[in-house]
Order: sequence, then structure tokens, then C-alpha cells
Amino acid sequence: MTTAKRDTYTPETLLSVAVQVFNDRGYDGTSMEHLSKAAGISKSSIYHHVSGKEELLRRAVSRALDGLFAILDEEGACAGRAVDRLEHVVRRMVEVLIAELPYVTLLLRVRGNTATERWALERRRDFDHRVAELLKAAAADGDVRGDVEVRLATRLVFGMINSIVEWYRPESRGASGPEVADAVARLVFAGLRQA
Amino acid sequence: MTTAKRDTYTPETLLSVAVQVFNDRGYDGTSMEHLSKAAGISKSSIYHHVSGKEELLRRAVSRALDGLFAILDEEGACAGRAVDRLEHVVRRMVEVLIAELPYVTLLLRVRGNTATERWALERRRDFDHRVAELLKAAAADGDVRGDVEVRLATRLVFGMINSIVEWYRPESRGASGPEVADAVARLVFAGLRQA
Repeated sequence: MTTAKRDTYTPETLLSVAVQVFNDRGYDGTSMEHLSKAAGISKSSIYHHVSGKEELLRRAVSRALDGLFAILDEEGACAGRAVDRLEHVVRRMVEVLIAELPYVTLLLRVRGNTATERWALERRRDFDHRVAELLKAAAADGDVRGDVEVRLATRLVFGMINSIVEWYRPESRGASGPEVADAVARLVFAGLRQA
Repeated sequence: MTTAKRDTYTPETLLSVAVQVFNDRGYDGTSMEHLSKAAGISKSSIYHHVSGKEELLRRAVSRALDGLFAILDEEGACAGRAVDRLEHVVRRMVEVLIAELPYVTLLLRVRGNTATERWALERRRDFDHRVAELLKAAAADGDVRGDVEVRLATRLVFGMINSIVEWYRPESRGASGPEVADAVARLVFAGLRQA
């Protein structure tokens, strides 16, 4: 039996509960009932904060996407040679992914069954495209190797970065966000082999 | 209405149908009914070939695991400096992943709810460990950079390789297995930045 708790949520704190439930059960598999149970408040209390689960999804993936897009406006992403701007973006992507882990995890699992999911996929593609453009510019400058095709390289680098959500656990006191970011930047830009 | 087709399956051809259904619906979400429908033969015909869906899972993930473990016995993985053996293994992992795409996809999605799944996870961990040991040996030789921790590097490299199942589509006539393998080996060992 669950004891209803007094509703002390704000839309933001409710969001952090919802994201965890979405990640555990999948967005499609989550009902308002599940959210109400996890939050310990009634469904009508949830409706007091948000219009429904799709609004929670939109807020959650927006938080991830806003974090990622903000990187592109940072000075390190705007000034200097393309290859250095690209390295800044790669490093910061890892840091944002780790800082906003549950939100980025949810974003990466979005499949496109609802309008909000399709909108999120569209924004993800837009972000990927902006990063691919940086890589293309760095190749045009002759600063990155020419023997790996830009689209393929972009996919592989995103694959490495996004895979972090599969194993990174903040509570396990392993590497910090900046440490993982350093490791990714070293691997991607300089490679494993000792020169 | 489905018309039952004459059962011309062997355990191997039945397996390729089953793997596709497992990948589409998830192993947990697949019933013998789904398999019977997809194969176009009766459930009792399926039981003529295999003892049930868990045997199909075991055969499928065995095919992926056997392909991966066979790499470790190849000459390129056994002779020479550790860093070169590691590069051989990384390249061949990508080729095996692409050659056995549906089987490796299924292997990477195994979650551990049944004895067969737990056995598959155990063998995956064993394989990952063997690759990490190679990386450790290459680091001890001074052939790979010392400023990326071995466990972290192994996870990131596996993350890049395993992410290929998310986007690689053999029918789209993009890069071939060996081309993707080259790209991964270049990125992982030499990095993007032009020396």
C-alpha cells in the first residue's frame, strides 16, 4: 500500500522522478499511474504541474538538447581553427552527457512514436549535422586525416560518446566527467598508439 | 489469415528468422506464437527442430560469440607485438560484427533474465577481458599512450565498435565491413588529427 505524500513538487523536481521512470520502463511503457506511484502523489496532483506525460518527455529531452546546443555557442566552439573547435565540442559533449546523464540517456532512447519524439529526433539530427560540419571544415583545413570519410567518422565518434550512458555510473566514484572527456578527446584526436 | 507453409527449415534457417523476430520484438516480448507466425510454420514444426525459444537464443548468441572468440585464435591475434595484435583484433571485431550483424545485435541486447542470457553475458565479459588484457600488455610495452586508463579505453573502444549495430545497414550500399574496420582502426590507433 502506498501512502500519498504531500505534494511538494515543482515541475523540475517532478521531472527528475519522471525521467527515471521513463528510463526504467521505456517512455511507451510508462503510464500516468506509474508516474503517480513513483512520485507518491496522485495523478491529479501531477496534472496540476504538467499537462501529461508527453509534456514531461518534452521538458526532459529539452533539458538534454539545450545543454548540447549551448556547447555550440561557447567561445571554444566559435573561435580558432575548426579542428580545435571540434575538439572543444567533443570534450564538452562528454561533460554535458555525464552532467545530465538521465536526460541524455532518455534523449538517446527516443524512437519517434509521438510528435514530441519526432521533434527530439529532428533536433538531434540537427546537432549531429552541426558537428559533422565542423569535422568537414577541419578536413578542408587539412587538420584531420583525409582517409576516413566525414560521415563515417562522425558516426563512430558519436557512437563512442553516446555509449558512455551504457556504463557510466556517477555513484561508483570512477572517472569524473572531465576525466572521461579527456580520455575521449585523446582517443579521438590522437589515438591509442604511442607516436 | 496465414497459410501454413511446408516446413523446409533446418535449425540454421529457422534461426535466421528467429533472430530477426528477437531483434524486432525483444527476446522477452517474443512468444512461440510470434516465431510460428514469422516462420509460417506451426509451433509443433518448430519444436521438431529446437526445444523452444531459449534454444534458439542460445544458438544465436553462440554464433556471435564463436565468431568473436575465433578472432583471438587467428595468427594476427597471437603473433607479434601486443599493440599490433590489438589492432588486428579491433579490426576483425568490426568485420565479424558486420558479417554477423543480426546475431551480434542480439548478443549486445541480452539483459540477463534467463540462464542462457546470463551465460551469454558471462562469455561477453570474458571476451572483453581478453581484449583489455591485450591493451594492458601493449601499455606495458610502451606502445600505447599511458594517459588513458586501460579499463576506460577498453570501454570507449568497445562503445565505438558496438555502436555500429545502431546504424549499419548492409542493404544501403554504404561502406563495406573492411572499410568500416579500417576507419575504426585509424581512429582508435592514430586518431583524427593530422600529425
